[in-house]
This record gives sequence, C-alpha cells and structure tokens, in this order.
Amino acid sequence: MPELFGEISLKKDSDSPLYLQLYSKIKEMIENGILSPDYRLPSIRKLSSMLKINQVTVVSAYRQLESEGYVYSRPGSGIYVSRFPGNPLTRSQAGSLMADELYNQDDLAIISGGNIKIHEGTINFASATPTPDTFPVEDFKAAINEVLDRDKGSAFGYHESQGYIPLRECLCDMLKENGIPCKPENMMIISGAQQGIDIISKAFLHQGDYIITESPTYTGAIAVFNSRRAEIVDVEMKEDGPDLNILEYSLKKYRPRLIYTIPTFQNPTGYSYSIGKRSALLDLADRYDVYIIEDDYVSDLDFEDRKYVPLKAMDKNSRVIFIKSFSKIFMPGLRLGFMLVPERFHGNLLEAKHTTDISTSGLIQRAFDLYIRKGFWNRHWNFMYNVYKERYFTMINALDRHLPGSVGYRKPGGGLNIWLNVDYRSWTESLFNRSAAAGVLFAPGRIFYSGSHPQNLYNIRLSFAAVYREQIEEGIAKLCEIMDSLQKDNHSPSNLPIL
Amino acid sequence: MPELFGEISLKKDSDSPLYLQLYSKIKEMIENGILSPDYRLPSIRKLSSMLKINQVTVVSAYRQLESEGYVYSRPGSGIYVSRFPGNPLTRSQAGSLMADELYNQDDLAIISGGNIKIHEGTINFASATPTPDTFPVEDFKAAINEVLDRDKGSAFGYHESQGYIPLRECLCDMLKENGIPCKPENMMIISGAQQGIDIISKAFLHQGDYIITESPTYTGAIAVFNSRRAEIVDVEMKEDGPDLNILEYSLKKYRPRLIYTIPTFQNPTGYSYSIGKRSALLDLADRYDVYIIEDDYVSDLDFEDRKYVPLKAMDKNSRVIFIKSFSKIFMPGLRLGFMLVPERFHGNLLEAKHTTDISTSGLIQRAFDLYIRKGFWNRHWNFMYNVYKERYFTMINALDRHLPGSVGYRKPGGGLNIWLNVDYRSWTESLFNRSAAAGVLFAPGRIFYSGSHPQNLYNIRLSFAAVYREQIEEGIAKLCEIMDSLQKDNHSPSNLPIL
Repeated sequence: MPELFGEISLKKDSDSPLYLQLYSKIKEMIENGILSPDYRLPSIRKLSSMLKINQVTVVSAYRQLESEGYVYSRPGSGIYVSRFPGNPLTRSQAGSLMADELYNQDDLAIISGGNIKIHEGTINFASATPTPDTFPVEDFKAAINEVLDRDKGSAFGYHESQGYIPLRECLCDMLKENGIPCKPENMMIISGAQQGIDIISKAFLHQGDYIITESPTYTGAIAVFNSRRAEIVDVEMKEDGPDLNILEYSLKKYRPRLIYTIPTFQNPTGYSYSIGKRSALLDLADRYDVYIIEDDYVSDLDFEDRKYVPLKAMDKNSRVIFIKSFSKIFMPGLRLGFMLVPERFHGNLLEAKHTTDISTSGLIQRAFDLYIRKGFWNRHWNFMYNVYKERYFTMINALDRHLPGSVGYRKPGGGLNIWLNVDYRSWTESLFNRSAAAGVLFAPGRIFYSGSHPQNLYNIRLSFAAVYREQIEEGIAKLCEIMDSLQKDNHSPSNLPIL
Repeated sequence: MPELFGEISLKKDSDSPLYLQLYSKIKEMIENGILSPDYRLPSIRKLSSMLKINQVTVVSAYRQLESEGYVYSRPGSGIYVSRFPGNPLTRSQAGSLMADELYNQDDLAIISGGNIKIHEGTINFASATPTPDTFPVEDFKAAINEVLDRDKGSAFGYHESQGYIPLRECLCDMLKENGIPCKPENMMIISGAQQGIDIISKAFLHQGDYIITESPTYTGAIAVFNSRRAEIVDVEMKEDGPDLNILEYSLKKYRPRLIYTIPTFQNPTGYSYSIGKRSALLDLADRYDVYIIEDDYVSDLDFEDRKYVPLKAMDKNSRVIFIKSFSKIFMPGLRLGFMLVPERFHGNLLEAKHTTDISTSGLIQRAFDLYIRKGFWNRHWNFMYNVYKERYFTMINALDRHLPGSVGYRKPGGGLNIWLNVDYRSWTESLFNRSAAAGVLFAPGRIFYSGSHPQNLYNIRLSFAAVYREQIEEGIAKLCEIMDSLQKDNHSPSNLPIL
C-alpha cells in the first residue's frame, strides 16, 4: 500500500496549503474505500520523506483528518483509518478533543505531559472548554462584515490600549444590569483573562513579592506568578471559601501585595465563597492594604439559583480588580475579555497592557461590540446556559447513581467543574491511567497545586464543558466501575497509603 | 445655538452605538450648514450633561467627527467645525493623525505628554505608522470570509501557542526566498513585535539582569526592559553600527544576558550596521555567551539597493532571536508578527507566550495565511514599497534643498525615518514648540534614550510614513525656515548652550 502514498502529488505553488492538499488526497482515499478501516497510515517521518515535504505538513494533514474523525491515533502505535468516518457526533467530538489535546495547554498537555493520546470516542472530562460545534460562527461573521463595511481601514489601525470605547460602553451596560457598578473609564479590554492576570502581575509583582492564592487554583495563574518569581502563599479552598483565620495569619505574616481569587464556582473545586466570607475578605483587604484579583470565569453559570454576588459588586473601597473571560461561554480563540480597574491603577495597568501587545485586535473588538448590540450575545448566552445546565444535571445524577460510597463531592450549584474527593493515595494515578486506557479522561487534582500538598493525591476534577449528555452517562458509569475495582484491590493492607 | 444640541435625541436601545448616533446627528448639522465653519461645539462636559449621556460617548463622537475631517481641535480651546469637511485628502489625513494621537502611543503621546493637539492639516513627521487609507481592507475581508466558510468553528477554537502551522509554513517559504534559513518548528507567531520583545524579556530577564541596547533606540523596547526591572546598558549607535570596543567592554563588564538590536534602518536613527560589524557582533555573542534580539521592523524597505543581510541569515551558532513586525507594511491594528527562535529556547519562549495570552487570535492567523497564499501580500507589499519609496526620495530632496548648512544627517538608504543632527541645545525644544504651532510635528530625539545623555538634545526624528508627497515638500520647507530663524536668534551669546 505505501506505493499508493508515494503517488500523491502536491502542488507547491497552489493557493491551497500543502497540508490541506495532502489532507484532501487521504480523505478521498478513505471515502473511496481505498484505505479500509483500521488501516495504519505511514509514519510522519516516512510520508514526509516519500513526498519530500516537511514533517510539519504531514502532522497538520493528519491532525485535520483526526479532527474530522477520518483517522484516530493509538498511543505509541500510530494513526489509523476510522471505522465510522461519517458519524457527525464522533466527528465534531473528535474535533473538540483534538483542539484540547493540541491547543488547550492548561488542560491535557499539562496533565499527561503530552503522552496521552486521544482515541476516537474518548470521553473528555478533562477539558473545561466548549466545543467548536457550539460556536456562533455565522452570526459573528455577519458582525465582522458589517463592521468592515462600516469602519473600513479604521478597523485595522492602532487602537487605544484601554480598548474600543463603544465596546467598553456596552459591556458596562451589561454589567450594570447584573448589579456591578461600572464606568467605561474604569474598564480595560484584554486579549483573554490570561492576559489580564499577566498584566496585573507585570504591574504589581516583582521578584520575591508575595501573593496569596487559593489552593488548589487555576494552573494558568500559578504559571504567571511563577514567571514573575513571586512567592505564592497557598490558602486552602474549603467548601465555603478559605479559613479566615489562616487567611489573616498569612496576610500578617507575608504582607502580600495581592490576593488572587475565583470566588464563584472556583476552578478546579467548583466551590464558592459564602456571603459572609465575601465581605470578610473585603474587610481584610482594607485592613491589610492588599488588593484582590477577582477572576470571574463562569459566575453567570448558576444552575441552582445560588445568586452569589461578585466581590466587585460589594467593593466599596476599590480593592478589587475584576477580570472577566468570555472563553467558556463564547469562543476561546477570539482571545477577548475585560478588567475593571480601580482608578488609582489606571496608569500602571495601561502601561503594562501597552508594553504587552499595544492593544487587543481592533477588528475583533469592533465585531464583538456589534455582536452584542445586535442582541446575538444574549441569545447565545441563553443557548450555552441551557446546554451546560443540562450537562450539569446529567453529571450530578450519574454521579449520585454510580459513585462508590467512599467517594464524596459537594454539588457546586453551577460552573463547569465537579471536584471529587477520593480516599486512597494510590487512586488518582492508577485511576487516571486505567480510565484513560478505557477512554475516559479527567484532570488529576495534583496539577492545580502550586507546591507539594497532601491533598494533591486525593482529588480529581471532572468537567462537563466538552462532553455530550450520552457521553456523561457512559463516562461516569465507566469511571465509577474502575473506582470500584481499584477500591477492592486497594483493600489489601500492602496497598495502604504511605502517609 | 446650545438649544440645538439639547434637542438631539438618542435611542439607548438601538443597534447603533450611542456615540455613532451622536456623531451622525452632528455630522448632519454640519453638512446642512446648520453649524457653520469655525463654530465651536459645546464642551464635552456640557454636552454630556445636556443629553444625560456618558462623557466618553461625547469624546468618541467628537473623535469620529475629527477623524473624518468634520471638526478640528485647537489646543486648550475647544472643538470647531472644519472649513473644508468634504476635502478627501484632509479627511483621510486627519484620520491618520487622530489614530496616531490617540492610539500610537509610541509616537505622539510620549512626545507631547498628551498636550499637543493635532490641527486639521497638521503635517505629521512624528508618526512612523502607515495611514488607514493604505490598508487593503477589501482583500483582507475576502480572506476572512473564505476562512470562515472553510474552517467554521475551528477558526475560533483555542490555537496552538506557537501559531497556526500553515501560516508558519508559508511565512518560512517567504523568508527562504529572502535568504533566511527557516523551519516552521522554529517559528512562533506573536501578537505584534511588541509582544515578541515582551515575551523574550519574560523568559530571559529578571530584576537586576543586564541588557545591552543601542542608544538611541525604540521606546517600546526600553519600556519593556524597564518593566522587568532590568539594567539597560546603552551603547551609542554610530552611522555604521556601535563602536565594537565599547560593545566588548560592556559585554565584559556587565555580562548581559541579551543584546537588543535593530541592525537595519534602525529606529530612530535610520542607520544600519556595516557587514563587518554584523559578523563582529555575532562573534562577540559567541565569545561572551550572550543572545541577540534582532528586531527587523523594516529591513525590506531598501530604497537604495543597500542589500543589508539580516543577522539571522548569518547566524551559524543560533545566537539570534529574530522578530519580524508587519505593522509598518500592513495594518498595525491586526497585531501580528513572528519570531524565529533557536531550538534550545523553544520551551521557555512557548511557556512565556502561553502565560501571556495563550495564543494569537486564530481567525486573524488563518485569514493572514490565506491572504499570503492568494498572492495579496506580495501585491500589497509592492504597493507599500513604492508609496514609501516616493516619500523617501521626496523627503531627501526637500532636505537637501532646504536644510541649513549647520544641520546634518546621513541618508539611511531605506526604512521610514531620518535622523537630523542639530547643533544647539536650545534647538530641539523650541523647534518642537514653534513647529508644532506652525502645524509640523516631529519626534524629538530625547524620547529615544533610556537614560540621560548629552545627545538627547541634539537630534530629531523625521518619519515619512504618514505624510503625503505634497505635505513633505511643504512641511520640510516650513521646518527649515523655523530652523533658520532659530539659528539666527541663537547666535547671540546669551543663548549659547550650557554644557
């Protein structure tokens, strides 16, 4: 069969990228039955030397085929032709999984060190990112075209570092409806929440400065604080927020410049601060003259009417820098979010933004502005809310039916993640490997800790952002079965945890 | 007349942003002659309270009117109706000037501290950025639409931090044609050259580390190195590159981690390294184990056949991190550029990019990829090359005719800037003020120095990126006239420089 591949001819001077040409040829061979299911494609090295093209080109073509469900990969073995290349669910699901494996580095790459390959049909509870099939591409395209017709070249000139004014105005209107007081002058548009954390760190944190974070917390934030060589002080995240005595002790002892918090449906735990702890946190910030980064990534995904109030809405003394991401509701690849910045920090944070990337893409800002004004955003938000809500209750119900008695969790009431407390040291690692082999992925708790921590080994994060309802049922059943069998194995004394 | 403004009615629930509604109403009043030329518009505060809208909304509307030439502002006085709102040249020129004043902070904001307002018809030699009338909006729009039809949701998913592979492939092909060896694996897509400098600093520079830069140099780079609290070691940029003995002395004494250089058509001087100094620099980097950031922002704008070879093309021992910007040829608001990264730094720089903004906008990357593959890029590059070339020679000729004998400069042979050496301490400041009052702006040399430096006061940068041919003639004549008169004033002994 290799001679078949040797005959593939690609045009270097074509409009179409080489990898797309190669992808089309192989796709054709699959669709015409020339390559049959489970046929192993030539290795990347081999095909690239056969066709005298770059290895990257072959990788891209294989990725494209995989993202559309035409091929699948087996760990350590190779790339194979799929059995059901035409299955649309498989196809779009595979697409999202690929996207996670390859691009969403805060998820799978970190977890697996790049070693875990995703099979066709893998159930991915590791990704907290929506799948491309939910993206409102046509509406956004209409907004882009309308903006280009309206604004022409201005859409592509330098933009104010602080962000396109009309977008800031209409985002403020949205926030006010949600009870957060807001002025366009205090808003800064950023290229995603990650950039917000980065900019604040740039402006505030220097080598050796202390910052308090919840433990566990968002891996992307830990990475930023480490990159500034700041000292991270962990405070354990409990089911209703951190222990206030410990928090105050840390404030006294380390005199940090900043507290980084995700007060609502925290990542990874899903836990939220009680109302009492919210106001106590603000009081402590005043007392110890420290500022708070409030990372609001999904507080609006409230499925059980918890009605948590953002810190920013209670922030009388301008202690809170509020960061809002759109990646979980909208399209993560847009790279768009915003911050609310207390007046005294305008100068510092604007300078940090300016030296970072001058401004966020003007075209994207203008298109998003129009998208909101046309009412598309509200419609899409409702759609996503209902998609996620269904997945949330499906997962809660499946857990309640299948989970072994020894494994506990607290219903978060919203967000995208559920945090399981397992009880044996050997569990999470063997559980991860066995369940990955069975086609079910999750995020082991250890990746969300900045230092070493006994809790590292006792938790796992299940996300329901990137899985369909049927997959949730099936995946939770499988996972719990593996837990059951591990629990039996581990009851022999030799496997008791070494503490 | 104020009652006229009080009657303006705006619809809060409309699709159209409030500022655009307000802009349209005022524009109509101007076009219908209700407001006559030189009529002073209500102040921002007044109009916002009259209409019960945000001040930002009024500012935006006035800016939009100004950018289209309907109104102009007078320093410290107010906003007035233009005399020739219909003049298309004025209009598009005013647009570009506004964009500079408001957005291109490395230019005017820094120079003037925000105090200098741009009149209608101001000749702006301070901006090194192309004007929106040169942007290929329609072609890029076609590329975006084709990409969205082709890739759908995938265009908006998370993208690889390193950049969209097909784009890296086709940029590598372009580079190879220009003699720079290149593999897609070593390329990283960035959100503009500014981000490249920022990412490298994040990965390499810590508080107290030394970095060598040319003096003077790009202000955006100085700001980044300062934000890392690095120690900047200046080495004077001579007409053929820095003095090698001083450079070596600095390498020995400070043991820096990095050298930041713009070897071809340097910003702000326009000077280029001789071929001998290029290879000597690479040798020194080897000998003192230091890495070089080569900021290539306009080396392709070679108008006098100088054929300078980029350091990266001579870089046998992988000492050079090469940064390429598209902002000067293409559209600065896209926020797109790339870096070539030696293999050993892949991990560090990818992590720095990832913690900065995860990835550059996937849609913009995909659209630019298609734009190149369709041949649009080559066509646009040729267009811009010819536009800039004409402006270059126009400026050289005007300078040769008008410049007082005591003011010297070296013909750069390409790029976008010309660096004049003036000879009296009092000159650049009084020159700046007098010529701004006469409607001619330039960038005083002092802003391009990181520390204090006697040279600060003896140079000015003239850019020809944002001015039309006729404006160059007129502007240089005016400027030289002011120089002449200043020179006469300053010949009285009381005005001799205090050294």
